[in-house]
Amino acid sequence: MEKLLLTHASELVTASGRRALRGREMREIGVIPDGAVLIEDGLIAAVGPTERIAPLAGQCETLDCSGRTVLPGFVDSHTHFIFAGHRAEEFSWRLQGESYMSIMERGGGIGATVGPTRAASEEELEREGAKRLASMLRFGVTTAEGKSGYGLDLDTELRQLAVMERLSGSQPVEVVSTFLGAHAVPEEYKGRTDEYVEFMIRQVLPRVKEQGIARFCDVFCEKSVFSVEQSRRLLTAAREMGFALKLHADEMVTLGGASLAAELGAVSADHLLHADERGIRDLAQSGTVATLLPATAFCLREPYADARRMIDSGCAVAVASDYNPGSCYTNSVPLLFALCCLYMHMSVEETITALTLNGAAALGLADRIGSIEPGKQADIAVIDCPSRHYLPYHTGVNLVERVIKKGKIVL
Amino acid sequence: MEKLLLTHASELVTASGRRALRGREMREIGVIPDGAVLIEDGLIAAVGPTERIAPLAGQCETLDCSGRTVLPGFVDSHTHFIFAGHRAEEFSWRLQGESYMSIMERGGGIGATVGPTRAASEEELEREGAKRLASMLRFGVTTAEGKSGYGLDLDTELRQLAVMERLSGSQPVEVVSTFLGAHAVPEEYKGRTDEYVEFMIRQVLPRVKEQGIARFCDVFCEKSVFSVEQSRRLLTAAREMGFALKLHADEMVTLGGASLAAELGAVSADHLLHADERGIRDLAQSGTVATLLPATAFCLREPYADARRMIDSGCAVAVASDYNPGSCYTNSVPLLFALCCLYMHMSVEETITALTLNGAAALGLADRIGSIEPGKQADIAVIDCPSRHYLPYHTGVNLVERVIKKGKIVL
Repeated sequence: MEKLLLTHASELVTASGRRALRGREMREIGVIPDGAVLIEDGLIAAVGPTERIAPLAGQCETLDCSGRTVLPGFVDSHTHFIFAGHRAEEFSWRLQGESYMSIMERGGGIGATVGPTRAASEEELEREGAKRLASMLRFGVTTAEGKSGYGLDLDTELRQLAVMERLSGSQPVEVVSTFLGAHAVPEEYKGRTDEYVEFMIRQVLPRVKEQGIARFCDVFCEKSVFSVEQSRRLLTAAREMGFALKLHADEMVTLGGASLAAELGAVSADHLLHADERGIRDLAQSGTVATLLPATAFCLREPYADARRMIDSGCAVAVASDYNPGSCYTNSVPLLFALCCLYMHMSVEETITALTLNGAAALGLADRIGSIEPGKQADIAVIDCPSRHYLPYHTGVNLVERVIKKGKIVL
Repeated sequence: MEKLLLTHASELVTASGRRALRGREMREIGVIPDGAVLIEDGLIAAVGPTERIAPLAGQCETLDCSGRTVLPGFVDSHTHFIFAGHRAEEFSWRLQGESYMSIMERGGGIGATVGPTRAASEEELEREGAKRLASMLRFGVTTAEGKSGYGLDLDTELRQLAVMERLSGSQPVEVVSTFLGAHAVPEEYKGRTDEYVEFMIRQVLPRVKEQGIARFCDVFCEKSVFSVEQSRRLLTAAREMGFALKLHADEMVTLGGASLAAELGAVSADHLLHADERGIRDLAQSGTVATLLPATAFCLREPYADARRMIDSGCAVAVASDYNPGSCYTNSVPLLFALCCLYMHMSVEETITALTLNGAAALGLADRIGSIEPGKQADIAVIDCPSRHYLPYHTGVNLVERVIKKGKIVL
């Protein structure tokens, strides 16, 4: 039996639970002073004060976590990390106040990523993807979701998903894949959105299913992109094929995406900057996790989603990076802590829940990852500071010193 | 002769000049595609396109910077990095809306740092200071200013300065020291601010001068702390003793600090969130650098200083971290880029100037550091991205791959 013992954590944050925490529950992360974790064969075997846990371990590899905070590995439950085609100059154009139309005319926008991604080889996508996962790992992320959606055609969508499938096995960060063929309407289908939705349902989704390379189906439900009706049609078809569902909902205008996600039993509804009272109530009364992406709001200078109201209404809130080459080219977990705690009025404890257990729940994995408790997979981040309060306090600075994935020290 | 050659930088940003850049000049950073730098005995010997510079080098160590951006090392011209006594919990209290008074009553505020700093040994201060400088170096900072001001008594103030003096020689980051005995009025002098100022002038400043351990004298000129009159008295005395001057000016209310700094010929006026039209005009017409500290505004949820108006009025603007254990416990250069470009309407080019050449000017060192040009000290940061545009675009993520200080690769 392979064993690893972590001892003397000045704070061991357990974030226990096997489902999303909702509303006030989100504050109830367990904190054990002078904490220890015993790991056996990749699973957590025992958790508690060092003086109780250490004697159970016998002879085994020990990691002294004195002066450190030990947390569940972070779960980044919404990213678009497989792509070619950076858009750094477009970012500068936007900062200078150029309009969306002018940027499109200069060759910016999602097309500036779709073209290079279609042209990229599988090897290139995999190599760049591996670098990005390595960067996530340095921020303490042990599980990341990744979406297709920069192909918008059969071959490239499948290629993006296949690359994620391979990456999940070839490096430490577990990757959960989402099919997002309905990310935008490609040039070839301009003005024929319904036909594109049909193409997705009849030609692409069945192939994704057949290859078993995506757990979720997602749609960018937004004004001038995919309507609530088109989104419902695609997601219903996906559900019938056995996909779990996600939805880009109410990001730019109030369209009813939050309510649609709740209605369809989606695992998560994401963005929600413009979710209205009804949308928030529907999410609170459903099993759907409200996934907030504050770094995108920060980068686009948009108002943040109303996290406080969602939590106070009883929603289960997750937070993720939205790492993508257009609106939000960042995977910084410290930035997320800063934005949640300083600008979304979330407490440190709520933010930790949102980035661990509720992130896991947003991937349908709360029974296996997202907390430090017996029986769960041993995915752990060790932070070089003596308490959880440093996560927002040492603002924007990465404090991750060690990462453990499935019981192995991988950083 | 010791030589080092950097070649094939996809962008070499030179930021040339031997004085602060003002107003529109701040955009005029030189950018050389496929750039090279030849370093000889710690100084920059030649700068230009690789095809012209490489043949000049002869046989020597070469660093291939293909796909990288090469910049002057960053100059963090305003920090308080020597202290004991973190205030992480106080940060959480503040987030929860506790008042300043309530925080003081619970033992927070500057006293929570002054007590532990007075109690700390020189070795402890030095060990922690070295760690913080190592963190700055990882962000590409090659020169950092550091202030005393957590002693507020003779012994501790001298100890803070002595520690910085030693650190400047024992690790790669050059440290420029500032005496800030007038950071706050200590308990012992409560209600006797004038007497404290006299104590600084008669007892402390002469000892600092005698030991030669500070280049600058600085005062926290703010309502209920040190008035404009008290600040003028202390700074005038310091100037007569040969100190260069800095001033914490107009941070919380408009008090006239900016104008005082200009009047006294201070090298910089810092913070300036509430500098009014007259203050900005006075700075623009003086040689005083306007040093902005946006991470502090971000952490305190205050409005940012009006960088755009200052630059458009012809000021020389520098940007620094304000790294300190109370209002702004961050030294993240990527966070500064994000805040300047996204929230202060500064261009990438202006922000680079503010963090390199103008940072150097804010320390009176623009003739020696802050740009990549022949004759200057070879302080250089190599960034793992193909253009300067990634600095705000890859938001909040540290892109520094290599750092060169005085011609030596130190990271």
